[in-house]
Amino acid sequence: MSKYSIIGTNTPRVDSPAKATGRALYADDIKLPGMLHGQILRSPLAHARILNIDISKAAALPGVKAVITGEDTPKVKFGNWRLFPDTQDEYPLAVDKVRFIGDEVAAVVAIDNDLACEALDLIKVEYEELPANFSVDESMAPGAPVIHDYRPDNISLNRKIEYGDLVKGFAEADFIAENTFEVHAVSHAYMEPCACVAQSDDDGRVTLWTSTQVPYIVQCLLASTLGLRENDVRVIKPVVGGGFGGKMELRAWEFCAAFLARRTGKPVKFRLSRTDELAYGRRRHGMKLYSKVGFKKDGTITAKDFRADLDGGAYNSMGPTATFLCGNFGAMLYRYPNYRYNGYHIYTNKPPAGAMRGFGAPQALFASETQMNMAAEALGLDPIEIRIKNAMVPGDQIPDVATVSSCGFIECLQEVAKMSGWKAKRAACAESRDGKGMGVGCYSFISGGVFNWLYTQYTFSAAEIRAFEDGTVHLLTPATDIGQGSDTTLKQILAEELGLRMEDIRLTVADTSVTPQSDLGTWGSRVTLMGGNAVRDAAAKIKKALAGVVSLKFDLNVIHDIGFKDGKIFPVTRPDRCLTFGQAVHMHQKFKRGEPLVARGYYVPRGKGLVTPAFSFGAQVAEVQVDRETGIVKVEKMYTAHDCGTVINPMSVDGQLEGSIEMGLGYALCERFVMDKGRTLNTTFLDYKVPTALDMPPGESVCIETFESEGPFGAKEAGEGLVSPTAPAIAEAISQATGYRFKDLPITPEKVLEGIGGLRKV
Amino acid sequence: MSKYSIIGTNTPRVDSPAKATGRALYADDIKLPGMLHGQILRSPLAHARILNIDISKAAALPGVKAVITGEDTPKVKFGNWRLFPDTQDEYPLAVDKVRFIGDEVAAVVAIDNDLACEALDLIKVEYEELPANFSVDESMAPGAPVIHDYRPDNISLNRKIEYGDLVKGFAEADFIAENTFEVHAVSHAYMEPCACVAQSDDDGRVTLWTSTQVPYIVQCLLASTLGLRENDVRVIKPVVGGGFGGKMELRAWEFCAAFLARRTGKPVKFRLSRTDELAYGRRRHGMKLYSKVGFKKDGTITAKDFRADLDGGAYNSMGPTATFLCGNFGAMLYRYPNYRYNGYHIYTNKPPAGAMRGFGAPQALFASETQMNMAAEALGLDPIEIRIKNAMVPGDQIPDVATVSSCGFIECLQEVAKMSGWKAKRAACAESRDGKGMGVGCYSFISGGVFNWLYTQYTFSAAEIRAFEDGTVHLLTPATDIGQGSDTTLKQILAEELGLRMEDIRLTVADTSVTPQSDLGTWGSRVTLMGGNAVRDAAAKIKKALAGVVSLKFDLNVIHDIGFKDGKIFPVTRPDRCLTFGQAVHMHQKFKRGEPLVARGYYVPRGKGLVTPAFSFGAQVAEVQVDRETGIVKVEKMYTAHDCGTVINPMSVDGQLEGSIEMGLGYALCERFVMDKGRTLNTTFLDYKVPTALDMPPGESVCIETFESEGPFGAKEAGEGLVSPTAPAIAEAISQATGYRFKDLPITPEKVLEGIGGLRKV
Repeated sequence: MSKYSIIGTNTPRVDSPAKATGRALYADDIKLPGMLHGQILRSPLAHARILNIDISKAAALPGVKAVITGEDTPKVKFGNWRLFPDTQDEYPLAVDKVRFIGDEVAAVVAIDNDLACEALDLIKVEYEELPANFSVDESMAPGAPVIHDYRPDNISLNRKIEYGDLVKGFAEADFIAENTFEVHAVSHAYMEPCACVAQSDDDGRVTLWTSTQVPYIVQCLLASTLGLRENDVRVIKPVVGGGFGGKMELRAWEFCAAFLARRTGKPVKFRLSRTDELAYGRRRHGMKLYSKVGFKKDGTITAKDFRADLDGGAYNSMGPTATFLCGNFGAMLYRYPNYRYNGYHIYTNKPPAGAMRGFGAPQALFASETQMNMAAEALGLDPIEIRIKNAMVPGDQIPDVATVSSCGFIECLQEVAKMSGWKAKRAACAESRDGKGMGVGCYSFISGGVFNWLYTQYTFSAAEIRAFEDGTVHLLTPATDIGQGSDTTLKQILAEELGLRMEDIRLTVADTSVTPQSDLGTWGSRVTLMGGNAVRDAAAKIKKALAGVVSLKFDLNVIHDIGFKDGKIFPVTRPDRCLTFGQAVHMHQKFKRGEPLVARGYYVPRGKGLVTPAFSFGAQVAEVQVDRETGIVKVEKMYTAHDCGTVINPMSVDGQLEGSIEMGLGYALCERFVMDKGRTLNTTFLDYKVPTALDMPPGESVCIETFESEGPFGAKEAGEGLVSPTAPAIAEAISQATGYRFKDLPITPEKVLEGIGGLRKV
Repeated sequence: MSKYSIIGTNTPRVDSPAKATGRALYADDIKLPGMLHGQILRSPLAHARILNIDISKAAALPGVKAVITGEDTPKVKFGNWRLFPDTQDEYPLAVDKVRFIGDEVAAVVAIDNDLACEALDLIKVEYEELPANFSVDESMAPGAPVIHDYRPDNISLNRKIEYGDLVKGFAEADFIAENTFEVHAVSHAYMEPCACVAQSDDDGRVTLWTSTQVPYIVQCLLASTLGLRENDVRVIKPVVGGGFGGKMELRAWEFCAAFLARRTGKPVKFRLSRTDELAYGRRRHGMKLYSKVGFKKDGTITAKDFRADLDGGAYNSMGPTATFLCGNFGAMLYRYPNYRYNGYHIYTNKPPAGAMRGFGAPQALFASETQMNMAAEALGLDPIEIRIKNAMVPGDQIPDVATVSSCGFIECLQEVAKMSGWKAKRAACAESRDGKGMGVGCYSFISGGVFNWLYTQYTFSAAEIRAFEDGTVHLLTPATDIGQGSDTTLKQILAEELGLRMEDIRLTVADTSVTPQSDLGTWGSRVTLMGGNAVRDAAAKIKKALAGVVSLKFDLNVIHDIGFKDGKIFPVTRPDRCLTFGQAVHMHQKFKRGEPLVARGYYVPRGKGLVTPAFSFGAQVAEVQVDRETGIVKVEKMYTAHDCGTVINPMSVDGQLEGSIEMGLGYALCERFVMDKGRTLNTTFLDYKVPTALDMPPGESVCIETFESEGPFGAKEAGEGLVSPTAPAIAEAISQATGYRFKDLPITPEKVLEGIGGLRKV
């Protein structure tokens, strides 16, 4: 029997009924009296100087309430890396120049959306078109057009990681693998396009309801772009229909809504269409990756030299973080005694790339896992065996970067081999030559980041608990559920701590003026660990207060442990001497002469290296069937063994796994942006192909439970890392099935046929 | 120069711009997606047994989503006097019986309001009509129909106050005045008719936006009537357009909205029309008052025997409090060495009377002030002189009931005599016999009540302050601004305490799930004192924390007082050594390693007797001109001198005074319900005559500032007491002008003509 009541049990998502019945309110469902509707005029050119904008006709259109351009704004640049102001390279509305097709140039609000659209057509912009760069290579070519004056080489950022002695390491190698890889940009394809509503009050303060992963970051950056004090901005997160990293920055429409709400005195809504999202939206970084790894004959790694050129698009967005993390993930999974990473974030005249699920890992791991498979082949070793030989174990360190605490990687490898029948099936595939293949891919991921580029003055997460004599509690948390399920997880953690039921807990989330300061948002799989720890910290204070009441009531010796379970509080050795939770709160309140019982908890990761408090690990095996006539790849089965520490909600972890496989499948096989000189051509879900439920392979999975001492109840990351192993596992399986090695993505039927036919040059 | 920066200065109301521009959101402005509209079926009979209700046709009407009767509900009675459950005599929807015309019988929700109204007509109710009582006399007559079975004598409640020796007191008297008075029911006539919107969540919790004075009381009572836990109900107060005591209970439509939101899963709105409000709404208690007062020849009071029969209507509503307070106010203003009060709250088959501005005082004081004027006349004393002789002074006590702390009553009397030119003008009136008259009336009132009939487990008020490094603070207060201006007052108090500007303070108010528990609401003029003290308590904790930072920063000797002014914090003797407020918060946050600076404050009145922490006092003189041909009374001038302790916002106090005079004018001269066998006939503002701005007499006023040690910065009540002296002052002036003594209200032209003509028998 589990020692827990709720932790580890399948707990239905608290948000499911409202979502299933349509009662859930997303940002676009918010309608305020007198609300105006906004539209944004975007650049039709990839690179141009703005010579003149004539808004007079648009402004004169009856029903149009305001038209603004960059010149009307305070012209404050924004970007999540506040700690390094020169990385903040984007204006809410373009000033002087546009840098990609879709760059925001002007905004209109009108009494209805049709009028706002009509007004857009009346804005006349004179541009001086400039030569543009549409690839990393073009941007880095000598004499290339300069996209931002402050970076004449178009390299916005160079991040390095280096430790050990690379020369010595390679000298020790018996075999050196040296390869280049190329991965492409893909869309977050969240179900809910972005929308927001802003309202101003008579003191000029702004409230913004917005579909975001990062209410606090939006609060900070919106305040600075508007020229307001931080706390003159309130950000409220309604129900969010997915983010996947695509909603973790301040965005132009949020600024425009707030600015125009202040200017007009009316509530203002902006909403994006699916086409807006696909044509102009953030995307995962396409990268060119160079990797050189030295191996001994037995497979032992001696050194790694890794380089990534990130196609950042027109602005930094979340690129700096992706650039660093890519190099971190390149050093993970295996023990690289000597390592060097050079990451270049490069401007191009394309929609900016940003954070996306995996945050540098899918790219780094497609390269390193594919290369590991290639090395195994070259050295005549089993791909899983070579991994086990080099696998990280608890206590491993990346000097100055990371410390691995809990780690079940080797167990994952062993388990996935066992459950998939690896040895026998892989050998059978190799022999049959009938288009069947089997491949392995692995991942490690962070449980939130230990970096403070936002330069926040607050703890990294917070929670407030109010306890009531009616036996209920109210949890106020700034944590941001964007569909990943943190509302449910945090409630589970609190219910477990206090011995209550899920329905005993009221939840208020992610409202920067109501929930306690502060939380850096939902990204890097940080919420369960960081938000959960803040909840536990607050719960511990509540428990301490109530334990005192029980001790007093039953005149207990102070050595007694006090238990909290099934709505009761009791000495664990004498559970008959119990008070209900409500009784204990009542007594505490009496003791405090009417003051309610309230506690706040906080969490800051400390002393754990520079990356994350905890790493997750996992291994995945894909079985594919390639149709050699059509080039179509059918993934027949996915096996996964992964270590996310203590599993808090098995059905939630399963959901994350399924979603990850779906995304990994799309990344591996079909999703891509078709671009023509900076213009995205596939801007609907008819053209931009995302796998559907019908495309999903059957799967089996096992959780290798470790206990992560830094995580709540031993839990760590479960939502993001799993997106990485799918593509390299499938690619390896296709290699086995076809005899052709793919080092680029996606592996479309066309490429498969070219590969089989010997027509590929990549 | 004032020692204060903001206290005592004319500070514009923070809610004025939103109200003036129409941006303020009242309950009826709230529209939620999928919202249904409700209507209530009311009894057409004053007293009847419900035999059967057929809802089938109504429920079958397309677009109707639910129809409920009392039988569908948990049948839990409610009432504000939770401490005495048998006073809780009202069901949200009638069960078995109806007791007044308008009693709530059934409720309907439909997709629009017209459909809901149509459905009402389709509900068929079979009644057995019962004999009814339409006056206090009818209800108390032997063999009168019984309205509530648990009170066969129709007396719902008898409250007594007694101290001293009445027999001895009257034996010492040279002159005994013994009179009966009769005052009538009037409407609150708030500008905003009641409305509410309820929404349920998937755990069955309910959120209710409602036009209320008492969010926490509504939360408690709504939870019990729904069979929910207290904290499964959240009550949010939107902008409220006046209450005056008429919105201080749970009401049927609030229950119906919440119940039907849970039943239908959709948001539900109920809104009342003006006719609903006037025909069926709460009203000020009509009373019959008996008063016997003994005087020595020199005017010294020796004893008082006082009785009030309150016409309570069909249910208790706030009658129990009014019954007690009436007797308390009967003992105030003057030193009654021997006193007895008997208050009877009597059921009649009329709309229930409830709390209304003054809460028992206008009635008690019309009687006692008129009687004082009559006694002065009988004893040949000046009405002001006889008052000064008997006036309460600081330190006076009503045994077991009240202690008077600050008291400027004598100064008020002296000042109003001076400013009005009382002696000379009054004498001139007496001589001229041309229809001119001058009269005086006085009042005392409470600054909130020290009674816990709601049986709350919380402190009486609370406040939370969050301080930010950007130099702003956020005040979260459960205090309820219903138009009286407490949002502004509490901001002033906080700004003064912390040395900030009004615009540095964000305010969140009156949301039972967000603002800290708890506050008993807005009634009895409690908010400035109680809410203000909670704010000061929280501010003191913030100041203590920040004073430490300044002391540390400048290495100050601990004896230094630390000042907070103009956004700066400094040792008062060395103001050059200062930090800005934001800098100090920043440093405190660093010291706390990222934890935000938050403090909560509370207030409970203690050790101050059973009534209130502080009494206000005042005196008013009216000059009238009576047209002896038409009986029309023109009030030509009002003079007021009043003691509300320290004045926090002079323009707010002026506003309260003007509003009080307006209400007093209506009470004295024109407002009344015209009733026919329990049916209210005047149900629009065309028929129910409220004075308008054009009817307002010019006025002069002086604030006699005392320092109330129990109040914030010395402040006490300013909003409610002033409604009482106007009617007796005008009545006395009319008596002087006409020679006829009015002991009942309102004094209509018809009555004046009757009085002059000797045709009155009252």
